[in-house]
Amino acid sequence: MIYFDNNATTQVDKEVADLIYKYMTERYANPNSIHEFGIESEDAVEESRNSIAKLFGVLPFEIYFTSCATESINWALRGVAKANEKYGKHIITSKIEHSATINTLKTLEKEGFEITYVNANKDGVISLEEIKKSLREDTILVSIMAANNETGTIQPIKEISNLIKEKSPKAYFHVDCVQIVGKMDFKLKDLNCDLASFSAHKFHGPKGVGILYKKERTRIFPIITGGSQERGMRGGTQNVPGIVGTALALKKAFENLIKMKKIEEIRNYIKSEMESMGAKIITPIDNSVPNTLAAFFPKTRGDVIVNALSDEGIYISTSAACSSKGVSGSRVLKELGYSETDSKAMLRISLSHTNTMEEAQYFLKKLKNVLNFLKF
Amino acid sequence: MIYFDNNATTQVDKEVADLIYKYMTERYANPNSIHEFGIESEDAVEESRNSIAKLFGVLPFEIYFTSCATESINWALRGVAKANEKYGKHIITSKIEHSATINTLKTLEKEGFEITYVNANKDGVISLEEIKKSLREDTILVSIMAANNETGTIQPIKEISNLIKEKSPKAYFHVDCVQIVGKMDFKLKDLNCDLASFSAHKFHGPKGVGILYKKERTRIFPIITGGSQERGMRGGTQNVPGIVGTALALKKAFENLIKMKKIEEIRNYIKSEMESMGAKIITPIDNSVPNTLAAFFPKTRGDVIVNALSDEGIYISTSAACSSKGVSGSRVLKELGYSETDSKAMLRISLSHTNTMEEAQYFLKKLKNVLNFLKF
Repeated sequence: MIYFDNNATTQVDKEVADLIYKYMTERYANPNSIHEFGIESEDAVEESRNSIAKLFGVLPFEIYFTSCATESINWALRGVAKANEKYGKHIITSKIEHSATINTLKTLEKEGFEITYVNANKDGVISLEEIKKSLREDTILVSIMAANNETGTIQPIKEISNLIKEKSPKAYFHVDCVQIVGKMDFKLKDLNCDLASFSAHKFHGPKGVGILYKKERTRIFPIITGGSQERGMRGGTQNVPGIVGTALALKKAFENLIKMKKIEEIRNYIKSEMESMGAKIITPIDNSVPNTLAAFFPKTRGDVIVNALSDEGIYISTSAACSSKGVSGSRVLKELGYSETDSKAMLRISLSHTNTMEEAQYFLKKLKNVLNFLKF
Repeated sequence: MIYFDNNATTQVDKEVADLIYKYMTERYANPNSIHEFGIESEDAVEESRNSIAKLFGVLPFEIYFTSCATESINWALRGVAKANEKYGKHIITSKIEHSATINTLKTLEKEGFEITYVNANKDGVISLEEIKKSLREDTILVSIMAANNETGTIQPIKEISNLIKEKSPKAYFHVDCVQIVGKMDFKLKDLNCDLASFSAHKFHGPKGVGILYKKERTRIFPIITGGSQERGMRGGTQNVPGIVGTALALKKAFENLIKMKKIEEIRNYIKSEMESMGAKIITPIDNSVPNTLAAFFPKTRGDVIVNALSDEGIYISTSAACSSKGVSGSRVLKELGYSETDSKAMLRISLSHTNTMEEAQYFLKKLKNVLNFLKF
């Protein structure tokens, strides 16, 4: 099996899975129980929080555990909108955000918020000019992804942050950081944002755990209320095994960054080889996370190629997994100005530090066969 | 170690943990990916849904996966409130619900909904008379727990359902089923409710997985939007390992019901012995889930006893874990008419099918020592 779909999800690291297993079967107490067994669970949660905060360069109480990045994003958007509507009802985002952002803002739109969706250029870079023009007195929130899940394009987060501080200093800035962890080095402090969302299963951690970073004093309402967990901001018994596993996975993700140089070389090799087979490259190689390659073979169907490779035990994707079952082609690509046909032809190869050059070569060989079969 | 705090959380069953491990490390694909590896994940999720639906006696598409019962409850309450406010803004619940219900309804109250909180008697049985009186034309929702987490009291769910159908046929009925799974036999169909919430970690499944049952045609809005997962009703990559583990845990929970006769005997033995040591019994033995015993030794402090037993490696609790860190004593007990002092004296013993009579005897011996030390 060759797994090149790491932007969709990743294999849980074995050491992480072992730790999760231990917390499921041995250290299983409820972290809110007052007996010693419960306190040990609570300590495990708080040590995880500390470790994550340190890796991100923020304070432990600025880290909240959720069930996935989609929840984190819903919380950031809905929570800020509801807590700040008296200051304004204008929110800015881009047209190429993840569906968690787009669909949540569409809901807020129905509830009376005004959303400005800014464009991105053909490389997938969000327009700073449009953000600048859109920022207003009553803008309460700007939500932008750090890197696009489909093209891998890195967004000018610091520049956007500077624009916000300059033109709408009261507006909060939420960054969807899902696709940068384990792919590039960063400190949250340097991104200069107020909120940031993360997903553990994108960096070899477990499914079912998300993180929301919330800078001190950011006004936000909870969206899941109940017990006093997460300082009263997110009810529900904490997923201790998942949280402990997430902290370890994040530590290893930062440690494994050193391997991304090699991954970038493999990605670039695949890019050159695919180009010589006739592919058009979508990903801006010099401004992208090093693991991602979006490309298409004109007038082919992406799903046909994905399925043919799947029969060979090679797993790549068309567009984002969350929306790949639709028949309409990549939404992101269409927003970047590609045609319907090109959008349906899209392929995404997304590597992890565990992938090898041998896998890339095997993949290219099989891809060539598929293209021959399709008479491309 | 003796673990008698199974209403707070349970040890993940070893077979369940093994299955989760396998899905974390081997079958890790995103269930929304279109390649074969993804389809296998999707199949695993749908087989789990089918299995759970069958055990509950409902249809597969009536089962939704969430991240915990607190999320399920938030979704049921907020989702029904928002989707039905044009029909009315009145909601009925009881004063002894879990904080996930109470605190979510308090939020809805601030947003303009009117909540009626009905009383329970000293046994913890919710007043049918008050529910009957409270049901109105504009009542859109009634939310009641099947069994109380602190006292174990079983509520007259079918009678409440009948009252609703009779007096407010348009109102939906949500049942918090968290504390009955693995403790008593039931079919959701027989409860005659429109929505029901469940938590996997209460029946030897993983933390981080909840279930919402939503009867066909129940009008409800999603609270976490994003991708098209869960038929567009709950965004976020499904926690496949957790979901597969939950289905197995639920199957085993129903199979292990046969052991609850023995557990009831142990519970009743503890009750008699504690009574002879001077305890007042709160749990109505003949109308309670068989694993739970709430009691108190007058004028002692529950937390002192819990901590003293904890030093001996015996884990019981004071009140609900989600609120046990407060200093004010059990909220539920106070609602049942017990004094502040009695509420602070409360002890909860909650057994699982894995507990034994030998553990009960050891616990009672150590409890006696603690009481002697406290000069009770």
